[in-house]
Amino acid sequence: MSTDAPSSHILWGGRFQSGPDPRFWALNASLPVDQRLALHDVRGTAAWVRAIAAAGVLTPDERDALLAGLERIAAEFRQGTFAFAATDEDIHTAIERRLKELVGEPALKVHTGRSRNDQVVTAFRLWLRDAVDDLDAQVRDLQAALVQRAEADLEVLVPGYTHLQQAQPMLLSHWWLAHFWPLHRDRQRLAQIRQRLNVLPLGSGALAGTTVPVDREALARDLGFEAITPNSWDAVSDRDFAAEFLFWAALLGVHLSRLAEGVILFTSREFGFLTLDDAFSSGSSLLPQKKNPDGFELTRGKSGTLIGALTGLLSTLKALPSAYDKDLQEDKAPVFRAYDDLRALLPVLADSLRTLTVHPERAAAALAPDILATDLADYLVAKGIPFREAHHIVGQVVQRAAAQGVPLTQWSVDDFRAVHPAFDADVHQALDPWAAVARRDVPGGTAPNRVRAQLEQARAALDNPL
Amino acid sequence: MSTDAPSSHILWGGRFQSGPDPRFWALNASLPVDQRLALHDVRGTAAWVRAIAAAGVLTPDERDALLAGLERIAAEFRQGTFAFAATDEDIHTAIERRLKELVGEPALKVHTGRSRNDQVVTAFRLWLRDAVDDLDAQVRDLQAALVQRAEADLEVLVPGYTHLQQAQPMLLSHWWLAHFWPLHRDRQRLAQIRQRLNVLPLGSGALAGTTVPVDREALARDLGFEAITPNSWDAVSDRDFAAEFLFWAALLGVHLSRLAEGVILFTSREFGFLTLDDAFSSGSSLLPQKKNPDGFELTRGKSGTLIGALTGLLSTLKALPSAYDKDLQEDKAPVFRAYDDLRALLPVLADSLRTLTVHPERAAAALAPDILATDLADYLVAKGIPFREAHHIVGQVVQRAAAQGVPLTQWSVDDFRAVHPAFDADVHQALDPWAAVARRDVPGGTAPNRVRAQLEQARAALDNPL
Amino acid sequence: MSTDAPSSHILWGGRFQSGPDPRFWALNASLPVDQRLALHDVRGTAAWVRAIAAAGVLTPDERDALLAGLERIAAEFRQGTFAFAATDEDIHTAIERRLKELVGEPALKVHTGRSRNDQVVTAFRLWLRDAVDDLDAQVRDLQAALVQRAEADLEVLVPGYTHLQQAQPMLLSHWWLAHFWPLHRDRQRLAQIRQRLNVLPLGSGALAGTTVPVDREALARDLGFEAITPNSWDAVSDRDFAAEFLFWAALLGVHLSRLAEGVILFTSREFGFLTLDDAFSSGSSLLPQKKNPDGFELTRGKSGTLIGALTGLLSTLKALPSAYDKDLQEDKAPVFRAYDDLRALLPVLADSLRTLTVHPERAAAALAPDILATDLADYLVAKGIPFREAHHIVGQVVQRAAAQGVPLTQWSVDDFRAVHPAFDADVHQALDPWAAVARRDVPGGTAPNRVRAQLEQARAALDNPL
Amino acid sequence: MSTDAPSSHILWGGRFQSGPDPRFWALNASLPVDQRLALHDVRGTAAWVRAIAAAGVLTPDERDALLAGLERIAAEFRQGTFAFAATDEDIHTAIERRLKELVGEPALKVHTGRSRNDQVVTAFRLWLRDAVDDLDAQVRDLQAALVQRAEADLEVLVPGYTHLQQAQPMLLSHWWLAHFWPLHRDRQRLAQIRQRLNVLPLGSGALAGTTVPVDREALARDLGFEAITPNSWDAVSDRDFAAEFLFWAALLGVHLSRLAEGVILFTSREFGFLTLDDAFSSGSSLLPQKKNPDGFELTRGKSGTLIGALTGLLSTLKALPSAYDKDLQEDKAPVFRAYDDLRALLPVLADSLRTLTVHPERAAAALAPDILATDLADYLVAKGIPFREAHHIVGQVVQRAAAQGVPLTQWSVDDFRAVHPAFDADVHQALDPWAAVARRDVPGGTAPNRVRAQLEQARAALDNPL
Repeated sequence: MSTDAPSSHILWGGRFQSGPDPRFWALNASLPVDQRLALHDVRGTAAWVRAIAAAGVLTPDERDALLAGLERIAAEFRQGTFAFAATDEDIHTAIERRLKELVGEPALKVHTGRSRNDQVVTAFRLWLRDAVDDLDAQVRDLQAALVQRAEADLEVLVPGYTHLQQAQPMLLSHWWLAHFWPLHRDRQRLAQIRQRLNVLPLGSGALAGTTVPVDREALARDLGFEAITPNSWDAVSDRDFAAEFLFWAALLGVHLSRLAEGVILFTSREFGFLTLDDAFSSGSSLLPQKKNPDGFELTRGKSGTLIGALTGLLSTLKALPSAYDKDLQEDKAPVFRAYDDLRALLPVLADSLRTLTVHPERAAAALAPDILATDLADYLVAKGIPFREAHHIVGQVVQRAAAQGVPLTQWSVDDFRAVHPAFDADVHQALDPWAAVARRDVPGGTAPNRVRAQLEQARAALDNPL
Repeated sequence: MSTDAPSSHILWGGRFQSGPDPRFWALNASLPVDQRLALHDVRGTAAWVRAIAAAGVLTPDERDALLAGLERIAAEFRQGTFAFAATDEDIHTAIERRLKELVGEPALKVHTGRSRNDQVVTAFRLWLRDAVDDLDAQVRDLQAALVQRAEADLEVLVPGYTHLQQAQPMLLSHWWLAHFWPLHRDRQRLAQIRQRLNVLPLGSGALAGTTVPVDREALARDLGFEAITPNSWDAVSDRDFAAEFLFWAALLGVHLSRLAEGVILFTSREFGFLTLDDAFSSGSSLLPQKKNPDGFELTRGKSGTLIGALTGLLSTLKALPSAYDKDLQEDKAPVFRAYDDLRALLPVLADSLRTLTVHPERAAAALAPDILATDLADYLVAKGIPFREAHHIVGQVVQRAAAQGVPLTQWSVDDFRAVHPAFDADVHQALDPWAAVARRDVPGGTAPNRVRAQLEQARAALDNPL
Repeated sequence: MSTDAPSSHILWGGRFQSGPDPRFWALNASLPVDQRLALHDVRGTAAWVRAIAAAGVLTPDERDALLAGLERIAAEFRQGTFAFAATDEDIHTAIERRLKELVGEPALKVHTGRSRNDQVVTAFRLWLRDAVDDLDAQVRDLQAALVQRAEADLEVLVPGYTHLQQAQPMLLSHWWLAHFWPLHRDRQRLAQIRQRLNVLPLGSGALAGTTVPVDREALARDLGFEAITPNSWDAVSDRDFAAEFLFWAALLGVHLSRLAEGVILFTSREFGFLTLDDAFSSGSSLLPQKKNPDGFELTRGKSGTLIGALTGLLSTLKALPSAYDKDLQEDKAPVFRAYDDLRALLPVLADSLRTLTVHPERAAAALAPDILATDLADYLVAKGIPFREAHHIVGQVVQRAAAQGVPLTQWSVDDFRAVHPAFDADVHQALDPWAAVARRDVPGGTAPNRVRAQLEQARAALDNPL
Repeated sequence: MSTDAPSSHILWGGRFQSGPDPRFWALNASLPVDQRLALHDVRGTAAWVRAIAAAGVLTPDERDALLAGLERIAAEFRQGTFAFAATDEDIHTAIERRLKELVGEPALKVHTGRSRNDQVVTAFRLWLRDAVDDLDAQVRDLQAALVQRAEADLEVLVPGYTHLQQAQPMLLSHWWLAHFWPLHRDRQRLAQIRQRLNVLPLGSGALAGTTVPVDREALARDLGFEAITPNSWDAVSDRDFAAEFLFWAALLGVHLSRLAEGVILFTSREFGFLTLDDAFSSGSSLLPQKKNPDGFELTRGKSGTLIGALTGLLSTLKALPSAYDKDLQEDKAPVFRAYDDLRALLPVLADSLRTLTVHPERAAAALAPDILATDLADYLVAKGIPFREAHHIVGQVVQRAAAQGVPLTQWSVDDFRAVHPAFDADVHQALDPWAAVARRDVPGGTAPNRVRAQLEQARAALDNPL
């Protein structure tokens, strides 16, 4: 885009004696960012044309000419042939300018009763509504990939970690599904955000409403909005939907970062449970042996950036005094970037999961001999020892095993009894990991039958996020 | 709280050869923060006692003794007589320790099948559910104060601002209501957050579920939860509800900061539309004439702090690897502080609004002579001039008025006609502010009948936030 | 840039059986962002060529051919004729690929002993060093504009505000200079950041150092670095300089936002002390009378965005485990954007200040009659009344004046004596604003002679930020 | 603290007809937070007493009585016997109230020429100066612990990671030192912050300077400040020092989080290079075998909280309009919390490092057979093959080894020659890890002699952070 300052201004000519300073013009112009709203502004403007025609501001001929002009402009954007001019301060003035070139005088009436304040936010809401629908589909596909993994990996045991220390064995499927449910909540949230987003601000004028008796309800229907804003001042100043979207993106980012962290760990040589497909790994310019989980690292890194985008917009919105302050021009760039980042990440994550290789034997071998210490305590509880005492006894068992260097799984019954007489011949059953997972037999637990039931729930949730 | 490190540990005694370093113990202990969960932990523990008794872990006598002990502990907390011990690492161990003092051996069984991971998050959810309900009532009361103001100030005209420049006149009531609707969205959001919050994690154990066959659905009913968590790993690691709450608080803070900014401006000598009551103002230690809007400034200041609280928790949650990492201990303090801040601010704001004085005459006198320039343009549009051209003509009118120092409202018809012949004898009607607001006669507009209709909507919304 | 995934990879070919998925490739490629480093990477690579030639890795002929090739590549970037290829993953591989096209086999040796880890961060530091120097000059120019205003407005009295309530009169020059000193601290900070930034990481290899015996001190001199990094692991992972820069930008943004807020208020109709030049104002598409301070509003808005950029990078950096994790790819975009925003804002602010009009008479008329209440209290203190008591008496004077609607400046001596007998015939001298400012005669005070001395200090600081 | 609203106000009595609402009073009162400034406010007030006595406002007797009273108040705070009153709005009014109780009338003169605006920020700067010095010592001690580790672990080889994949072997000492240098930069920054912090604002009055002819330079010397603020408006509104401190804390937090992440990984069973001492580990209430790195996890978690503290203050400071706005009351709590968190973390980290156990044999065993692939490529380069080609050949070697399941270290020379004829009988020398680290023989590299030299540098830097 040219940053030359124009010598005349189609929008605010009359009151000004001199033209803008070129650097001020460049700073003020939002076209580099908001041109992305082109098709949505055309759509909003066409609806406005129909609405003010119905209110008697335009003749049917003027209306039809303007609608035809707008259709042509939409085609130009779609084909990439729309030519911007130096006087185009933003995408909205660019479209109005082009409309005048195509249709002539009637174009000067299009802005009757409308302000850029209500116009811009209408286009932004339309754009974001599409983006939201698109992202919902992408998150759903990642959920589907997690479901596929959970289906495929039902026979794989892995250590479950707390504090990055082995805690209890669990099904790998259980872990994949642990990352499914946060995404389920994300989609719930997104559906609720969409409702608040899908409200028409047009007809609010600069801040006080419009003098043109447009039918705002009809306008809302025309544009697919479910309701109209109840207060014109709020309508032009409200950016809750953008802040909500950025929070949604940041929290989704947090969820993805945790999944990413897990995959990065599990694909390290030290854990070794997973290997990424070559198609979703990268190498090193210096180290020939490297195979790096870049997609997951970028996911983790971008989750920080998404937190910053949210922070930035909230800080910008804080304490704004007017119905519209120019500060609000900062609302679109972070939303566009958040969308772009997530739109790029999500399909890569989904297919990275689908294509990775699981190493069940390495995962099984990784289980620490003392990972079933809790089950050993439960075993003592079943023998009538209170839990806190049982916990203490097993703590001593673990410490002795560590001191002697003999894994618990290789202890004899006598070894156990040397610590406490409640241990019996059946003690080794407490140390079988598959039996252990089967004992977590509550809803939400890692027992195989429970995980299978959870899988059913997940499949059902895929198409029913609310 | 004492920060002496205890010589023995009721929780993790067996495995450790030496006791903790006192500084490590002080760092690790969360009691100064989480003692606030006391009553909610007692409630959650009582439900757990009933659940494991039903599962056969406790005899009816043990159950009843434990429940009686818990009731007594609750009473001690309510009366402020509960005595903490140096070994109390957190509120949960304090309660368990006291329970053992009161009930003896059966207390050692309470933790059977439960982990602090699912215990803590259950108490936290119970606490936050109460806090959410409390804050909803407080926000509602602030909305009610705005409705009262809007009812009282229907006859007051004020300038409406964009870019902090006068744009169009509007009803002061319209402005009060402009701050009502963001709070309406806040209450919508809060109700939706409450649903996701009101889900039972207990029964998830450390991460993989519990081996005690508790009826988690019954447990949920006992504690008033509407659902149970579907995945035990997710159940103990999920802090979405805390992040959602902090986002909610931050966005509410942004809304309050915008209202505050408006009140701060309108109570300045230069604007002068409002005066705060002495009971909600403060003075200066040095400047005897000062009467400062401290409540609104603190609101604005704390809105920044709330943004930081959200940022902090999101950063903390990012990329956590395990089902439970100790990092999660940082989840409560920002939530407690956000609640406290809002709980202190909201009633002050509501009553500050109720008790302030409006100065209608100063507001009317403040209207700039050219504030109805848009209406002048609309007037020309009604005479058949396209909007863009009318806008340009009026721009010249405004510039000439400024150059000559004669306010537009004092121009003769001839003065107008000297700029453009389309101006006519009825031009002054376009410059009457009450007529101007009446012309914004669309839903959401500032026309008095529309504002009255909006007031009805607002009253209805007070008791129906969804 | 094409996002097609290349079929072969010049960088990490050998170890991989299949090529990258196109979506993974698009996500992973950083060229859209880092192509901005082109000239700095060429410079860093040329220095590396000289260094490894000196270490015997290249013959003099190879070295000269490579340097000529790099010079030609630099020229291509400067002229905009450099053609990217689909295989160009980032700017560094693009340059290496082009170098091979131009020079052939020797280009394959350029990367000997170097890793992208140390290469990229070297180019980034070189770029940021230039950016820092550029921004320092821009901040200095804004300081110069403030000094010019302070020189021009020495005869203008304005109300000084605390809590946005009039507190005491002051020189407008004093207020301009109040915004000079934060920028002075900013330039101090920037100079200190530059020192930590200006350290050479090259020669650190991937993380452990290089096996080529390069003279790192000579390399540093070649590139204008003042020191070399002391630890290779830290050298490739350290992004302190980027975080420091973003904090610097955010704090500068806060300072600019406070200046902007002041100008926005002072140019409002209600304050009315300043009018912006047409060349640095914008109008409204709907409201013909509007003249909006968009440049200052964008400054304020972008200050929020800058806070977000800092937050985002810090969150991204948090808890990274390795010497280099791909998360670090997120480091450049926020730095580039912060630079671009500030580079656009600063000159507009400076010239907006230089070209605005001050209205001394409106400012003088705006002084509240009770703005000298403190001086009245000081007057009583001079008559022997303790300050706290004097403060209380004057509080009653102010309240009575407000109740009676008679401004203090119009009170008779008897009116004052009716409140307290210590008031005397000379009481009106205490209420003269010029006398009042003259009484603030301490270093840093608003007395005209002190402001003139401060102006001298400021002029001296312009060329001596440390 | 009582939150009852007092019926009278020693500070702003005269102008107000009614007392404050109790909820407003509770919100407004800052005593719960700022009582921490008690001793520093006493010190600042004593200096002010000396200064205004020198200016003739107090007689020598009054001065001495006041100083004695202040000394007694300081003693009361030190002994914990100071009694707060319901009228104590903040620590400053509490001290003034007590002073009047102790000394009588002269106490009413103490506030002559001073405002709470310059008083509070003086006490805050004094407090923070002490905190900064304390934290510098703590960071230094952590550096000392890293140096001790580096000295102790010079014989230990560990894998070096990029992307959490093994990249090259390195000395464990090198890794400890990699965490030393970020702390060195932190101390550099802190020393520079201290300089900007150590500037006297007192004598600036509410915003415009004071009418009492105090000698501000002498006052600065009395309080140990190195300079005086040059502009009174800026002096009372400037909170750069608090923002700088919070950024410092956040960036230090990032550094500590990276160290923590490394230790958490290395103490996991899967890596297994380190074991924490029992005194710096914690166990689990459910899992008897657990030994968790809670101190390091809290460090990582609090690093998120610190980022939020910074964000919050920056957002609060943004766009404040006046010399002093009540929003600034939010400045202290995050600074106090950041200090407390770091003060608790740093000694635990230092002694956790000092007391942990290193497992050299496990670390050596963890080295992947292909970790020396780069050295194999360097070997080929030494045989005359260009680096890029060598890299490709070694990539094939690695892939073949993985496919055949034979570690590189077990390949015969013929195996190597089957891939490329340049491999020779000496190929196995390239695969010796100690030889490999020795080859990184550049300043900052991991060669043992270089690490020893680096250790010297580090030791020198301990006592010379600038």
